[in-house]
Amino acid sequence: MSHRTFVQSYKVRFGEIDHAGVMYYPAFFDRMHRAFEDFWEEALGRSYAEVLDGDGIGFPVVDIHSRFSAPFRLGDIMRVEIAALRLGGRSITFRYQLFKDDEDAPRTEAEIVSGVIAMGTFEPQPLPDHYRAALTPYVIQEAAPS
Amino acid sequence: MSHRTFVQSYKVRFGEIDHAGVMYYPAFFDRMHRAFEDFWEEALGRSYAEVLDGDGIGFPVVDIHSRFSAPFRLGDIMRVEIAALRLGGRSITFRYQLFKDDEDAPRTEAEIVSGVIAMGTFEPQPLPDHYRAALTPYVIQEAAPS
Amino acid sequence: MSHRTFVQSYKVRFGEIDHAGVMYYPAFFDRMHRAFEDFWEEALGRSYAEVLDGDGIGFPVVDIHSRFSAPFRLGDIMRVEIAALRLGGRSITFRYQLFKDDEDAPRTEAEIVSGVIAMGTFEPQPLPDHYRAALTPYVIQEAAPS
Amino acid sequence: MSHRTFVQSYKVRFGEIDHAGVMYYPAFFDRMHRAFEDFWEEALGRSYAEVLDGDGIGFPVVDIHSRFSAPFRLGDIMRVEIAALRLGGRSITFRYQLFKDDEDAPRTEAEIVSGVIAMGTFEPQPLPDHYRAALTPYVIQEAAPS
Repeated sequence: MSHRTFVQSYKVRFGEIDHAGVMYYPAFFDRMHRAFEDFWEEALGRSYAEVLDGDGIGFPVVDIHSRFSAPFRLGDIMRVEIAALRLGGRSITFRYQLFKDDEDAPRTEAEIVSGVIAMGTFEPQPLPDHYRAALTPYVIQEAAPS
Repeated sequence: MSHRTFVQSYKVRFGEIDHAGVMYYPAFFDRMHRAFEDFWEEALGRSYAEVLDGDGIGFPVVDIHSRFSAPFRLGDIMRVEIAALRLGGRSITFRYQLFKDDEDAPRTEAEIVSGVIAMGTFEPQPLPDHYRAALTPYVIQEAAPS
Repeated sequence: MSHRTFVQSYKVRFGEIDHAGVMYYPAFFDRMHRAFEDFWEEALGRSYAEVLDGDGIGFPVVDIHSRFSAPFRLGDIMRVEIAALRLGGRSITFRYQLFKDDEDAPRTEAEIVSGVIAMGTFEPQPLPDHYRAALTPYVIQEAAPS
Repeated sequence: MSHRTFVQSYKVRFGEIDHAGVMYYPAFFDRMHRAFEDFWEEALGRSYAEVLDGDGIGFPVVDIHSRFSAPFRLGDIMRVEIAALRLGGRSITFRYQLFKDDEDAPRTEAEIVSGVIAMGTFEPQPLPDHYRAALTPYVIQEAAPS
């Protein structure tokens, strides 16, 4: 198994904490989306604004499966790691892992399937080749059975 | 002093509470904006979507002055009252008062000046006459000096 | 199949719309949580604040599976329906369905597993009997195979 | 006039954009608060979590005056500059200036008065001496009249 992983760390913010004293769970998805925006700069060398408004390509969320095993609190550094599980014809499956500080086991994991659409029409479109090339290094390659 | 006041009550939400256990102050402005959206249905008989997308009129915030004298907590009912302080040529000054439950003194007050723009161009435009007519009953009339 | 369903409608808000002109997907979860807060008043006759702070019981999210088939836009009324799929010993699986206006097919669905914890310690605890009784009518009863 | 200024840049995020295609104004305050959190690390050498939970000191907002002269859009880099206008006995007045990219004139300005409270009791307390010392370099010194 060998692949590239996008890694970036973010602070858990005062306003993201809820009445129970831990990070409000919808804020996890906002955080994952912010990481997704940053991801494009590394993967493609283009800002997310350039992807959307320049290239006219959008990635609406189609399906989410996520698990939350331990909370985040104010002062925690959240390390977000993004890889890809599958590059389909008109969808991409990303894997998000959210770690506290330098822990080895993620406290939150999500597999998020995004469609590929033309921003002008909101219609599905194929993933352009140079996008596919940019994403390919992030795809987790399962070891072949011997 | 006689004028119409928009009054609507909202729950303080779990996700609006911050690490200090009280309503996060940026959430007050989100709440005021939601009340502002509801206000148009009463004042004009049109939804905020119709105002923006149908009539093509927007009200960007230009100036805010607000005071916070006591916090809101989960379980509080926030009563929002909206009146107008001034209908200018190309701006409107609204007054927001936020009360806890049935208290008489507001816990938060804000005067918010909104510009009037054409959504298509983001350029200033005069307030249409029927908008002015719809807003006039909400303008606080100061008693004339005797 | 017969069960009680919590139904409540909410406006899609100006601030919930994102750069693509549709409801920002993390805002769906904020909306589902607000409906979850309202749910307790119907199901148990107690506000969510009383559940958390009075009874000292919390429901942290453990697992989410959700699908998004069509967007919501400003001006849409989102009808949220909540039922329960499973009352476990220390977890509950809720089903959320989000409909646009009076459509019959949901545009978003989610199965969300919540743990049951003591707010004082964040430790798992069994679901109290009167909570179980209050939730039971919302459990979807699959028709028995004939 | 000579003083220290906290300067940090942040991306305008996809989810911060509203239906009008510009940054939602309540999100400006969330952004200012995030900068305020970061400010303490530079000024005091302590994280905001340490300020609140370690030192038990909080800074609830008491008064805001802010002006918005031009919008921010997706892809803009927002440069936040924080200085102090006044260190009172039990309150501090901060000045926020929000610039687009490397522009010289701020697009948004705010003067925010924060109280000083003990987090345990929410009662006002004097600003501790080492906090005052840490904040003093950020106070804008008006030139004395000659």
